[in-house]
Amino acid sequence: MNEHDRAVEAVTWRGGRCHLLDQRRLPAAEEWLELDDPAAVAGAIRDMVVRGAPAIGIAAAYGAALAVRARHGAGPDWVTAFDADLETLRNARPTAANLAWALARVRAASVDAPDPPAAALDEARRIHAEDVAMNHRMGELGAALIEPGSPVVTHCNAGALATGGYGTALGVIRSAWAAGRIAAVFAGETRPWLQGSRLTAWELARDGIPVTLVTDSAMGQLFRRQRPAWVVVGADRIAANGDVANKIGTYHLAVAARHHGARFMVVAPTSTVDMGTPDGDAIPIEDRDPFEIWRTTGADAPPAGVSVLNPAFDVTPAELVDVLVTERGVIERPDAAKMARMMAGNDPG
Amino acid sequence: MNEHDRAVEAVTWRGGRCHLLDQRRLPAAEEWLELDDPAAVAGAIRDMVVRGAPAIGIAAAYGAALAVRARHGAGPDWVTAFDADLETLRNARPTAANLAWALARVRAASVDAPDPPAAALDEARRIHAEDVAMNHRMGELGAALIEPGSPVVTHCNAGALATGGYGTALGVIRSAWAAGRIAAVFAGETRPWLQGSRLTAWELARDGIPVTLVTDSAMGQLFRRQRPAWVVVGADRIAANGDVANKIGTYHLAVAARHHGARFMVVAPTSTVDMGTPDGDAIPIEDRDPFEIWRTTGADAPPAGVSVLNPAFDVTPAELVDVLVTERGVIERPDAAKMARMMAGNDPG
Repeated sequence: MNEHDRAVEAVTWRGGRCHLLDQRRLPAAEEWLELDDPAAVAGAIRDMVVRGAPAIGIAAAYGAALAVRARHGAGPDWVTAFDADLETLRNARPTAANLAWALARVRAASVDAPDPPAAALDEARRIHAEDVAMNHRMGELGAALIEPGSPVVTHCNAGALATGGYGTALGVIRSAWAAGRIAAVFAGETRPWLQGSRLTAWELARDGIPVTLVTDSAMGQLFRRQRPAWVVVGADRIAANGDVANKIGTYHLAVAARHHGARFMVVAPTSTVDMGTPDGDAIPIEDRDPFEIWRTTGADAPPAGVSVLNPAFDVTPAELVDVLVTERGVIERPDAAKMARMMAGNDPG
Repeated sequence: MNEHDRAVEAVTWRGGRCHLLDQRRLPAAEEWLELDDPAAVAGAIRDMVVRGAPAIGIAAAYGAALAVRARHGAGPDWVTAFDADLETLRNARPTAANLAWALARVRAASVDAPDPPAAALDEARRIHAEDVAMNHRMGELGAALIEPGSPVVTHCNAGALATGGYGTALGVIRSAWAAGRIAAVFAGETRPWLQGSRLTAWELARDGIPVTLVTDSAMGQLFRRQRPAWVVVGADRIAANGDVANKIGTYHLAVAARHHGARFMVVAPTSTVDMGTPDGDAIPIEDRDPFEIWRTTGADAPPAGVSVLNPAFDVTPAELVDVLVTERGVIERPDAAKMARMMAGNDPG
């Protein structure tokens, strides 16, 4: 393992508890929460202690394992209470596809097992380990597409902090950096939660990868001046036709990339693909508290007549996606047929 | 006068002093600074007590009048000291064309006048009054272009707070609102100084014009969902070929507008046009303190390896400008020939 393989783990299991790095406090402080019941894990997902679709899935899997441990001793009806816990976890955030996917895996592995708590924890750990392995695989696949000497742009944080470790978009950037292919990394600060300036900058700095931050709105000018070759982002849900829900601002970047001739790469494990969602219009987009945006003004509440919209995600249509990288391979210009072929397990190329 | 004519004045002259509404404190507090020397006015411009190219020009004109008053009693060489004051004012911010323009007007009107202090103050007041009159004229011209029932987008604050009163872009929106042409106003918060959420929201709320705020990065999705018909913005400097420097993020919006078939309107008095600047590449772009962006993270300083770029403006090339509105008329798709014709005083159409 080289140093770039040793990126921070934001979700871990130790001493019978789920440990979460409180990402709301970064970069000013590194504080960990130690949680031993599923409702607390659901609250931590809702309140953005942990964020990023794969990390949300892993935290939810550990939350489900905590739920099995708490419920299975209550007699033959324990699964009813367990399913209520899963519902609480599932509702913590609506957009990330990995959340429901991870809960279904832990449930399937544990409810009929001889030792449900052990089986649930094993499955959660398997989900976590698989995620890290997939990130490394995607990192190699994506890095191979980046021409040496490329300036690249990323958005939000699709790094170790957003996954089981290493990262999706930042996994590609880590691998490409290690291979000498990256000339510069640019990141938008990612209002309103500042995942770019608080998390991506912190994470890349720990790995010794230089990064330049700009406000999200400065990205237009950055395309003209710094001429990035690639935009590399993660995803929270990918529909059956290849439309991509990701952090708000991603679509604005995709439009600018196309206008300037830069290429647009989405990096996500297939657990992010929801074949039951036909297209981007069907993806539920979380609207968060307007005060998350307004509070930065320093005033208590907006004046009468002033509304604030705070969608947490946007949808980039498949036609603006040049490349989709999953652990199964690389798809150029995704569409429904290519997505179906990949999800069926055939060569996605 | 209807109520929309009575927009707030951010720069006024009263009791022998230049009064500036401290726009850094809005909307949490309305505080006024009363300044009686030109260096203090220059400092207020640099520190963004007052901002917006026309308002900067007016404040600088009053600053120049204060300088004449302070210097002219010192004997025949007083103009040398006065010119040093003008240089301090001129260097307060590099991008706004109106700054040098206003200083040159006050200087030309006063240095050879029988009563230089009175002549300087008269000229500053004339600049101020002309600006308000031009805003009303541009408001009518621009509003006439907006089809009834249009959703519109604006960026930063090109309102009463950015001018002598009424506003450039917000003057158009005020006039169009009064004429029943506006279905909805959307504004980006405008990082890092939040002129959209702090100033434009405050100013429109005072006039009873509803406005919806989003993060700057959410504008891409807003174009897909709310389908604005127009983007209406001000300008800090317009080059001889029609390229437009305006608040950072304007160009990102212009690209999105073109991609989605929305039209892009720039509203600015001809004092913003600098025929000595051939094109956008020649416009000096102010780079401000990176900490203006970084401080929002809550950490003291970025980690090693993390850089922050804080350009205050970007350049929108003339080919993305559908309409330029000045007090002299409307230019569709500005170019060097149309700009030259307008500045020579001929029909710009």
